[in-house]
Amino acid sequence: DFIYSLENDVKPTLGTSDDALDKFIDRGIISWGNTRELLERGHMFVKQAKSPETRNMLCLLLEGAPTAGTSALAAYLAKNSDFPFVKVITSREMVGYTESSKCLRINKIFDDAYRSELSCIFMNDLEQLMGYSPIGPRYQSLVLDALYSLLSSSPPKGRKLLVICTSKRRSVLEELGLLSMFTAVLRVPYIKEVEDVRMVLDESQAMTSSEVEAVCQHISHGDVFVGVKKLMGLLDTMRVMKGVDPQKRVAAFCNLLEDEGIYTPTV
Amino acid sequence: DFIYSLENDVKPTLGTSDDALDKFIDRGIISWGNTRELLERGHMFVKQAKSPETRNMLCLLLEGAPTAGTSALAAYLAKNSDFPFVKVITSREMVGYTESSKCLRINKIFDDAYRSELSCIFMNDLEQLMGYSPIGPRYQSLVLDALYSLLSSSPPKGRKLLVICTSKRRSVLEELGLLSMFTAVLRVPYIKEVEDVRMVLDESQAMTSSEVEAVCQHISHGDVFVGVKKLMGLLDTMRVMKGVDPQKRVAAFCNLLEDEGIYTPTV
Amino acid sequence: DFIYSLENDVKPTLGTSDDALDKFIDRGIISWGNTRELLERGHMFVKQAKSPETRNMLCLLLEGAPTAGTSALAAYLAKNSDFPFVKVITSREMVGYTESSKCLRINKIFDDAYRSELSCIFMNDLEQLMGYSPIGPRYQSLVLDALYSLLSSSPPKGRKLLVICTSKRRSVLEELGLLSMFTAVLRVPYIKEVEDVRMVLDESQAMTSSEVEAVCQHISHGDVFVGVKKLMGLLDTMRVMKGVDPQKRVAAFCNLLEDEGIYTPTV
Amino acid sequence: DFIYSLENDVKPTLGTSDDALDKFIDRGIISWGNTRELLERGHMFVKQAKSPETRNMLCLLLEGAPTAGTSALAAYLAKNSDFPFVKVITSREMVGYTESSKCLRINKIFDDAYRSELSCIFMNDLEQLMGYSPIGPRYQSLVLDALYSLLSSSPPKGRKLLVICTSKRRSVLEELGLLSMFTAVLRVPYIKEVEDVRMVLDESQAMTSSEVEAVCQHISHGDVFVGVKKLMGLLDTMRVMKGVDPQKRVAAFCNLLEDEGIYTPTV
Amino acid sequence: DFIYSLENDVKPTLGTSDDALDKFIDRGIISWGNTRELLERGHMFVKQAKSPETRNMLCLLLEGAPTAGTSALAAYLAKNSDFPFVKVITSREMVGYTESSKCLRINKIFDDAYRSELSCIFMNDLEQLMGYSPIGPRYQSLVLDALYSLLSSSPPKGRKLLVICTSKRRSVLEELGLLSMFTAVLRVPYIKEVEDVRMVLDESQAMTSSEVEAVCQHISHGDVFVGVKKLMGLLDTMRVMKGVDPQKRVAAFCNLLEDEGIYTPTV
Amino acid sequence: DFIYSLENDVKPTLGTSDDALDKFIDRGIISWGNTRELLERGHMFVKQAKSPETRNMLCLLLEGAPTAGTSALAAYLAKNSDFPFVKVITSREMVGYTESSKCLRINKIFDDAYRSELSCIFMNDLEQLMGYSPIGPRYQSLVLDALYSLLSSSPPKGRKLLVICTSKRRSVLEELGLLSMFTAVLRVPYIKEVEDVRMVLDESQAMTSSEVEAVCQHISHGDVFVGVKKLMGLLDTMRVMKGVDPQKRVAAFCNLLEDEGIYTPTV
Ligand SMILES: Nc1ncnc2c1ncn2[C@@H]1O[C@H](COP(=O)(O)OP(=O)(O)OP(=O)(O)O)[C@@H](O)[C@H]1O
Ligand SMILES: Nc1ncnc2c1ncn2[C@@H]1O[C@H](COP(=O)(O)OP(=O)(O)OP(=O)(O)O)[C@@H](O)[C@H]1O
Ligand SMILES: Nc1ncnc2c1ncn2[C@@H]1O[C@H](COP(=O)(O)OP(=O)(O)OP(=O)(O)O)[C@@H](O)[C@H]1O
Ligand SMILES: Nc1ncnc2c1ncn2[C@@H]1O[C@H](COP(=O)(O)OP(=O)(O)OP(=O)(O)O)[C@@H](O)[C@H]1O
Ligand SMILES: Nc1ncnc2c1ncn2[C@@H]1O[C@H](COP(=O)(O)OP(=O)(O)OP(=O)(O)O)[C@@H](O)[C@H]1O
Ligand SMILES: Nc1ncnc2c1ncn2[C@@H]1O[C@H](COP(=O)(O)OP(=O)(O)OP(=O)(O)O)[C@@H](O)[C@H]1O
Ligand SMILES: [Mg+2]
Ligand SMILES: [Mg+2]
Ligand SMILES: [Mg+2]
Ligand SMILES: [Mg+2]
Ligand SMILES: [Mg+2]
Ligand SMILES: [Mg+2]
Repeated sequence: DFIYSLENDVKPTLGTSDDALDKFIDRGIISWGNTRELLERGHMFVKQAKSPETRNMLCLLLEGAPTAGTSALAAYLAKNSDFPFVKVITSREMVGYTESSKCLRINKIFDDAYRSELSCIFMNDLEQLMGYSPIGPRYQSLVLDALYSLLSSSPPKGRKLLVICTSKRRSVLEELGLLSMFTAVLRVPYIKEVEDVRMVLDESQAMTSSEVEAVCQHISHGDVFVGVKKLMGLLDTMRVMKGVDPQKRVAAFCNLLEDEGIYTPTV
Repeated sequence: DFIYSLENDVKPTLGTSDDALDKFIDRGIISWGNTRELLERGHMFVKQAKSPETRNMLCLLLEGAPTAGTSALAAYLAKNSDFPFVKVITSREMVGYTESSKCLRINKIFDDAYRSELSCIFMNDLEQLMGYSPIGPRYQSLVLDALYSLLSSSPPKGRKLLVICTSKRRSVLEELGLLSMFTAVLRVPYIKEVEDVRMVLDESQAMTSSEVEAVCQHISHGDVFVGVKKLMGLLDTMRVMKGVDPQKRVAAFCNLLEDEGIYTPTV
Repeated sequence: DFIYSLENDVKPTLGTSDDALDKFIDRGIISWGNTRELLERGHMFVKQAKSPETRNMLCLLLEGAPTAGTSALAAYLAKNSDFPFVKVITSREMVGYTESSKCLRINKIFDDAYRSELSCIFMNDLEQLMGYSPIGPRYQSLVLDALYSLLSSSPPKGRKLLVICTSKRRSVLEELGLLSMFTAVLRVPYIKEVEDVRMVLDESQAMTSSEVEAVCQHISHGDVFVGVKKLMGLLDTMRVMKGVDPQKRVAAFCNLLEDEGIYTPTV
Repeated sequence: DFIYSLENDVKPTLGTSDDALDKFIDRGIISWGNTRELLERGHMFVKQAKSPETRNMLCLLLEGAPTAGTSALAAYLAKNSDFPFVKVITSREMVGYTESSKCLRINKIFDDAYRSELSCIFMNDLEQLMGYSPIGPRYQSLVLDALYSLLSSSPPKGRKLLVICTSKRRSVLEELGLLSMFTAVLRVPYIKEVEDVRMVLDESQAMTSSEVEAVCQHISHGDVFVGVKKLMGLLDTMRVMKGVDPQKRVAAFCNLLEDEGIYTPTV
Repeated sequence: DFIYSLENDVKPTLGTSDDALDKFIDRGIISWGNTRELLERGHMFVKQAKSPETRNMLCLLLEGAPTAGTSALAAYLAKNSDFPFVKVITSREMVGYTESSKCLRINKIFDDAYRSELSCIFMNDLEQLMGYSPIGPRYQSLVLDALYSLLSSSPPKGRKLLVICTSKRRSVLEELGLLSMFTAVLRVPYIKEVEDVRMVLDESQAMTSSEVEAVCQHISHGDVFVGVKKLMGLLDTMRVMKGVDPQKRVAAFCNLLEDEGIYTPTV
Repeated sequence: DFIYSLENDVKPTLGTSDDALDKFIDRGIISWGNTRELLERGHMFVKQAKSPETRNMLCLLLEGAPTAGTSALAAYLAKNSDFPFVKVITSREMVGYTESSKCLRINKIFDDAYRSELSCIFMNDLEQLMGYSPIGPRYQSLVLDALYSLLSSSPPKGRKLLVICTSKRRSVLEELGLLSMFTAVLRVPYIKEVEDVRMVLDESQAMTSSEVEAVCQHISHGDVFVGVKKLMGLLDTMRVMKGVDPQKRVAAFCNLLEDEGIYTPTV
């Protein structure tokens, strides 16, 4: 068994909380569609969490399908919360931990947060944190219990805590009874409009504007459905195809969109 | 594995039992609907537990749907029981404990209680204490056994013990055979009457009385169904919307009630 | 894991075996209905266990629904067995034990008993001892194995052992193959007759005889079905209602009987 | 966990192998029905196991319903095998052992046996040894594997080993693939004939011959089906009823036979 | 837990690999039916494994019903492979090992084999090695993984490894995906012809030739189906019946064949 | 339990990463059918992973049925990636590891990779790495979690990581939610054309060209379906049959193809 030493858990290579948050927003936030509105609503809750007149614990959940950009938006909110104490919890730092060690680690972060007057904890992908897997289904009961206990109990008097979480499996959280622990749940949508695709393509600067125009022209004859992260990933392939003839690049990209099931031409 | 040291289990940051109980009643008790009657019946059992003529063990269960206010009322009873020894057991303090450590901890609290002539133990959310989760379903057998053993055996001669528990899943306790361990079971209801909503809104002082009036006017055209904790939580959003125009605040709050499924207008 | 130290298992607070047995008979034995006959049959087996002409191992099971008074009667038999070595095994003393430690503890008690010429072991609630729970169902295989082995093997030559057990789930013991280990099985019934209720009410002295009369009068118009422990528990509520008007007390008690499903008036 | 120390496993209280075997035959062998024939067949295999011309490993199984007398007959064969090294394996000595410790213990006994030229190992109730229980069903895989490995591999050259086992659940052994490991399987039957009952009653000397006659007269009008151990157990009750009137004793015993489902009168 | 010390794993009592192989062939190889052909095909693969032009890893499986003689033939191939390094792996030496220790032990043998230029590993009863049991079904995943990894990865450059395995449950290996790891699979059949029975009877010299003749005469009127090991086992009974009248011996043996379901007369 | 010492994990016998990769390509790459094209597409992604303009993490999956040659092609890509840090992860080096140790080991390799500017990790047979087995089904949740966490989180700023994985069970990865972690998935096909068989036979030089011609002639009258590894394995049998008459060799090989279900003549 892996004995996790609480004293020596310095992981200098992983950097500060700010670095950790930045890693989720590595490509910035492109304000397509309702991104701005969503962030504003999120900010409202951050404000509510800070206010001395409200409950001293507020839990916010951002949930969306894979690659929707959920983690980036949640990290953005945490980063811009202006809370003096911000802490990031991801399953990445706890690879190989036993259930018990995982619980102790998460618990410690909450205990640390209780010591600060205003604290914010960012927990990415709750279902992954508790080792959820659909075959079985399986999950780590101890971690679920810990999350349940931590989200349902408030910090000591005079301390305020904001917890921002993300999830890709809202239905699982609901079934496990975790959803009702949140003060508010915000849904992060997929990109469906050609105009939103255009905005992402433009901003990412992987193509010339005439190429973007040609792509948008092409996909206007069907349905688009894609997460912002996925779309930006495909643009990387364009970046490598630099010297190539624009028409070929446009064709290649349109093919990619169709192959990956992102663009479906209407029959 | 986590070795829980019985000797060093001083958790000064969590404070005294009184603080722990207070945390559950952080917004006071608003005496809407049958709150008073419920507390009186509860107090009757507290009195019975104290009486030298009765059995030396009495177990009381308060059960209600999530956010019904179950924990606050149970904590209130424990706090006002005038028992010299009061101890609080919640899953929060046992995050990451192995089943065995959990049992030892709970057992120790009962053993401590046996040493005092009159003791009261408050256990919040029994099903959560035993790690119950509906997917499986799963629960910690050792903890269930411990609860079963502790609730079914009485303190030594000349000692009296009152155990007050809460639960959100009465049916689970029943299926596990725990329900029959209780001398009495009290149900904490949801708010259904407009007058009760008004009382909570008035007392919480998050809105002006004319705003309250407008809200009550609005919701009188349908059905209301909400736990007191949930209702008070929504009022926090109002608290942050301080400078806003009253009409907008009323509209915003009414929307919130409908969005959250608390208020359903009759068609 | 919990390492149970065999050397240090002195639990002075739990007292002697006699104290332990007395705790089960804290309200004495009221000889309603067939109580006396049942105890006589039990005593016959105690005598048989002692006789030098018989097998040197005899296992007796008392089984009844919850609150039937099973534990009190079994404890009474053990207490009055006049065996020089009497030992009590309950799940209460083994809260938090691992399966293995539980087995070792029970085993040790049997080994100790083997050293005495005449010994009696009282084991309360067998199914609880092995952590049985209906959801799953679950039970501790190691403990079941231990019970099976201990009940099926006899003490060394020249030693005689009487084992008295109780159970609330006869069918579970049967399914697990434990029932056939017993030389005899005695069933403890519920109270069904008004006359038996009267006897318990009279003897418990929680009501005046005219109150008892009024209650019996009332319930003679329907069916009664209750364990003696449950009935005596309800009388505790009467004890707290001392100053109250007799008529109200009678009404309150009759209501209680109906609410708890003990008395069903015939339509 | 329980660490079983191989060095210190001296259990002086359990005595020698001979004592252990004697405990199974505590009431001698009454030669009712085909007992003699069965023992002769068994002895044939003992002889075969000893012969230098045959395989150096022979496994014999005696199987019968509970109380059939299976263990006594198997122990009798082992005791009278005239093997210089005889070793007894029962679950009783391994209460609380982990699966692993159990395997090591059994393995050690086989290794010890390999050192002697002629050895006999007696294993009582195979299914109990591997913790079999019908709810689940459950069993200890490690122990099953160990038995499987030990029964299927022969001792080193020049060494001969006889293994005599008993079982109450032949079908379980079959399903687990253990049955085919045995060179021969002998079935121990229940008593079905009045004459066989008479022989057991006569030999056990718990009743006078006229009483025995009366009992046999009575049960000749129906069917009898009982294990010899069960029948002898019931006679113990007679032993305690010494001073009683013979007619009453006969009636009491006949009642007992009917109550326990041993004697069914033909309608 | 059992900590298997890799340093001290000298088991002098178990002897060398050659002894271990010999134990499987304790009664020699009688060349009935297609035995010779089967051994020749096996030898072909041994030759292929040795050849410097072929892959440096070859896995051969011999599979057959219980008592078919599978282990003896596989051991014979390994013994006569003329490989300088031969190692035997059976579950017998790993009784009581934890899954992990088992894996480490097997792994070590493979690592040792890698050090030799030409090595042969003999693994008996693969399904038993991984603790397979049909109730559940159960098996040890770690050991399955280990076998899978070891059989699928080849030795370092310049080293050649031949792995010869046996199995009684081909279908289980198939379902677990292990079957496709083998370069070739050879089936060991049961004896079906009277002539083959005669050859085994003759060679084993447990009966006179006229007795053999009589037996063969008798069984020619029906169907025979038996493993060579089983058949030779029954002859042991004949060996003990030495002084007996030949006719009785023949009758006894024919009865035995019928009782055990080996010989079925055609109706 | 097996405590894996991180400090001492030097396995000099297993050699360098390059050796490890070479072992997968021990028979070279024969460019039959679309092999070249597949490698080119793979190389494109290697290039993309290296480019400073793209995301700093790229995951590539090669998947194909058993013996399709998947591991060889993936290893080839990794070997020719020209990445300064290349590391190989296979289940072979982790035989007997506990889940936790496995995770720690894999985690460490990723952490090491993060320290280099450009790193490539090759993970063979993902489903085997997590101990997947279809009976149950079973898999190691901790390892799945680890893979999930490692594949979904990117290296620190300024570091680029390419992960190349293989799998034989694409559908399992899909069900477990791992498939969506990959930037691209390449399918490795089976050989279906006679011309492709010819190319493999020619290049492997196990037969003369006239023999190859004869074989191809023969199999042109039906369907061929085989992995390149399987086909090359069968040629080993030809290598041992060196002196034999060519016609016999051709016949033998054609038989082999049919026996193994590789060639099915059309009826
Ligand atoms: N409007 C936007 N919303 C979210 N992310 C954006 C937006 N614009 C650009 N991005 C970039 O897109 C990426 C979104 O990745 P993110 O990890 O948030 O996705 P995700 O939905 O959490 O994916 P996963 O399913 O892997 O968890 C980030 O690199 C972010 O910088
Ligand atoms: N009449 C009332 N009954 C209960 N709680 C009240 C009442 N009036 C005000 N409150 C306040 O409402 C809140 C009730 O919260 P409480 O934790 O008891 O709810 P709960 O039903 O236990 O919720 P949860 O489902 O989270 O366990 C407390 O802050 C308490 O101070
Ligand atoms: N005739 C009687 N039989 C049994 N108990 C009696 C009788 N008369 C009075 N009592 C009292 O009733 C109580 C019976 O409690 P006991 O613990 O035996 O019930 P139980 O059936 O074991 O309950 P549980 O279901 O909690 O195990 C004891 O306090 C005992 O003193
Ligand atoms: N013919 C007989 N066969 C077997 N046992 C006999 C016979 N005659 C007398 N006995 C006695 O009967 C008892 C049989 O008990 P034994 O333990 O063998 O039964 P069992 O079938 O193994 O019971 P259990 O189901 O408890 O294992 C022994 O005390 C033995 O001395
Ligand atoms: N032609 C033969 N083939 C195999 N075994 C033979 C042959 N002739 C004689 N024997 C002997 O028969 C016995 C076969 O036993 P073996 O252990 O190989 O059987 P098995 O099928 O592996 O049995 P099990 O089901 O117990 O594993 C050996 O003692 C061997 O010496
Ligand atoms: N075009 C090719 N593609 C792949 N492998 C080839 C090719 N040509 C020759 N080979 C050789 O074929 C073998 C393919 O083996 P490889 O281990 O890659 O197969 P696999 O599909 O991974 O098999 P397994 O199912 O055992 O994992 C290697 O020895 C490789 O050198
Ligand atoms: Mg995310
Ligand atoms: Mg609560
Ligand atoms: Mg009881
Ligand atoms: Mg027996
Ligand atoms: Mg074999
Ligand atoms: Mg491969």
